[in-house]
Amino acid sequence: MMKPIQIGLLGFGTVGTGVARMLTENADVIQARVGASLNLKFIADIEIKKDRGLPIDPNILTTDASMVVDDPEIDIIIEMIGGEGIAKEFILQAIDNGKHVVTANKALLAKHGNKIFKKAGEKGVDVAYEASVGGCMPIIKTIRESLVGNRIQSIAGILNGTCNYILSKITDDGSMFETALADAQTKGYAEADPTLDVEGFDTAHKLAILTALGYGMAINYDDIYIEGISKITPLDIEFAAQFGYRIKLLAISKFKARGVEARIHPTMIPFDNILSNVNGTLNAVTITGDAVGDILLSGHGAGMMPTASAVISDVVDLARNLMTGISGRVPMLACQMDRVRQVPVIPVEELLTHYYFRFSALDKPGVLSKISGILGKYEISLKSVHQKGRKTNGTVPVVMFTHRAREADVKKALLEIESLDVVGEKPVLIRIEDEKNLE
Amino acid sequence: MMKPIQIGLLGFGTVGTGVARMLTENADVIQARVGASLNLKFIADIEIKKDRGLPIDPNILTTDASMVVDDPEIDIIIEMIGGEGIAKEFILQAIDNGKHVVTANKALLAKHGNKIFKKAGEKGVDVAYEASVGGCMPIIKTIRESLVGNRIQSIAGILNGTCNYILSKITDDGSMFETALADAQTKGYAEADPTLDVEGFDTAHKLAILTALGYGMAINYDDIYIEGISKITPLDIEFAAQFGYRIKLLAISKFKARGVEARIHPTMIPFDNILSNVNGTLNAVTITGDAVGDILLSGHGAGMMPTASAVISDVVDLARNLMTGISGRVPMLACQMDRVRQVPVIPVEELLTHYYFRFSALDKPGVLSKISGILGKYEISLKSVHQKGRKTNGTVPVVMFTHRAREADVKKALLEIESLDVVGEKPVLIRIEDEKNLE
Repeated sequence: MMKPIQIGLLGFGTVGTGVARMLTENADVIQARVGASLNLKFIADIEIKKDRGLPIDPNILTTDASMVVDDPEIDIIIEMIGGEGIAKEFILQAIDNGKHVVTANKALLAKHGNKIFKKAGEKGVDVAYEASVGGCMPIIKTIRESLVGNRIQSIAGILNGTCNYILSKITDDGSMFETALADAQTKGYAEADPTLDVEGFDTAHKLAILTALGYGMAINYDDIYIEGISKITPLDIEFAAQFGYRIKLLAISKFKARGVEARIHPTMIPFDNILSNVNGTLNAVTITGDAVGDILLSGHGAGMMPTASAVISDVVDLARNLMTGISGRVPMLACQMDRVRQVPVIPVEELLTHYYFRFSALDKPGVLSKISGILGKYEISLKSVHQKGRKTNGTVPVVMFTHRAREADVKKALLEIESLDVVGEKPVLIRIEDEKNLE
Repeated sequence: MMKPIQIGLLGFGTVGTGVARMLTENADVIQARVGASLNLKFIADIEIKKDRGLPIDPNILTTDASMVVDDPEIDIIIEMIGGEGIAKEFILQAIDNGKHVVTANKALLAKHGNKIFKKAGEKGVDVAYEASVGGCMPIIKTIRESLVGNRIQSIAGILNGTCNYILSKITDDGSMFETALADAQTKGYAEADPTLDVEGFDTAHKLAILTALGYGMAINYDDIYIEGISKITPLDIEFAAQFGYRIKLLAISKFKARGVEARIHPTMIPFDNILSNVNGTLNAVTITGDAVGDILLSGHGAGMMPTASAVISDVVDLARNLMTGISGRVPMLACQMDRVRQVPVIPVEELLTHYYFRFSALDKPGVLSKISGILGKYEISLKSVHQKGRKTNGTVPVVMFTHRAREADVKKALLEIESLDVVGEKPVLIRIEDEKNLE
């Protein structure tokens, strides 16, 4: 019988509690599979008096995280504190002490992952982070291990359950964004300050990680284009549906000759794209590789136990390495450290895709020709034009779908159209992903 | 730089060619990720003259598989011969020689896996078989590694692309089974002798493997209930659709207190079950675990390159072990060898589920009451009864949906109903999976 693997848990919040629960309640199955037991030696949290509904030996609770990180007996530190402050300090301290680290901290990895992985590599320890993207979906293991022989061509995913819930709610109920957000907050799917989720930053943290893994490049969060869902209206969702599309907040990255596209924005996808049927708080990712074609993973992207499941899978991976005395078995950034490249992110202005526009136009002759004249000037060719719905404040909605157009041209054209006195409100632009109709 | 990993490939058919192609064309990305090169030292096949459209050094081609298996320099044998004859012999010989093995041979593993894994364990080598189930979907890695902390509760999947294509074709075109099969054969999706696929045996091979992995038990192929799709008619598919169901050949296994359910049969699943939207040759699996809830994987379950991708992922896993001098890192049957249990498969007669029946009944008074009287006698309670469509040969189709009933009762009742002189043809029975409506 192998000696137990000693674990220190930092952060006894929702996911930390899930991890402690799984280590306790499923200890038998874990041991049967791993061949050693995983012993939770310490749990550090500021608040150690609070009842988490778990039978935890009070002697393993401490407020002194630093003591846990410095305990020479501990093999693996699980960082569940979150944020970019002390979480980062404790991770670096654990690495310094030669301990392996498990974290779900996407914000930290998106911004400081390159440095953290470099330091871990130098110290001969692993930093595992399956739970940082897609909750229980094994997206990181799939890219790093299962698709190891593929040239990854693109990644497209629904990576934020809060946004997916809100968009599903607007779609199902026709409610306004604010109402759907309030509902998500009531149900505990959205934070009091929802900015990180609804403005797309959380999704971008995750895409930064997946993009690096997929294309063998260093993590580059700063250059990702980020647009959230707070401006999405029931009207646009209804129009989208009339033309066979659903609106999802997609994280999209594509490998191109000149670099990678990496962008987060509300996206119209056709009903026959399986991602359009992933609703509520579910997450899903499609990865396209030269050998596999498309593969899809879907599951709960957040929540106590799904996230804990991913954390435990990382802990077991590290435990298996510890039991055989190895480390660095699978490179943290998918490629060997010296093969990780700097790949530029192509500015969104150079994006070529299909667009949906909605204008509020005065209902009188010549307006459509003015708008389409400006679009034509910028070489934006239209697939279809529709005057939809009823007049409000003297204007009617005009909906247009374009052929493939260049984002920079689109932006210029919309700015010019916005300044027309026959157009009210700011025009709405939603990008379309529709591989079947690309031309 | 690590020294190259030496590989011997047995079988240069479709998937074997895909493996050779991937090792050649994607050598650069594989090396960047693994940190060593994978060298294809020999390819053994009876037919070595045939052009596979690949630039292969003729000196590595041989008809002598045994020589390859005995080559002391070779680290990993990839068995792509298939079948239960010489493939088994070469695998055992490779294990005897202390070599690791990669195979996609589900038929062999379903029937002889326990013995093969035991022998490999004794010899300290690994037998990897990701490609044996679900093609490129990392279903085996997901169960063994990503869900390692979960108690798996159920597995449900579409695991045979041939059947899924045929059922999708009948659904879309209303064609008869025979026509859809012929179409699948023309397109290369079905073999000249389609028995293994359409009668459910291939699906059962795969379920035998997944069931063992999910519940920590020895492989038990013999006790799986197997029913294929050759009796499915466009009529039943149409009726199913009218009530919100699609018919899929599902592999289903569930962990119960008394043992496991393990069954392959055409199954009605509601439209809102994501598996109902997995069409054409695609495969998909839903795994339910106590922590993750449901997770779904979907992708190409067969074909040259998707299957090769899974083979390469296994080869890389073994290469990483070889590079660090370890083996047996992840137990072949998910649990440590001494923890693998014998778990009984519950006979299908004890199944409790919902049923769809279709009877051809004479269109006259009293017939319905006779049929429902017999069902009542066997305690089968009906949720709804529908007389559908037009009279043919003096009979009309009568469709019934049951509440939860016991298979043994259902079988007895149908036999008795079949013998009524007011009922023509053999009654049709299709099982329903509809978790939301279980009562």
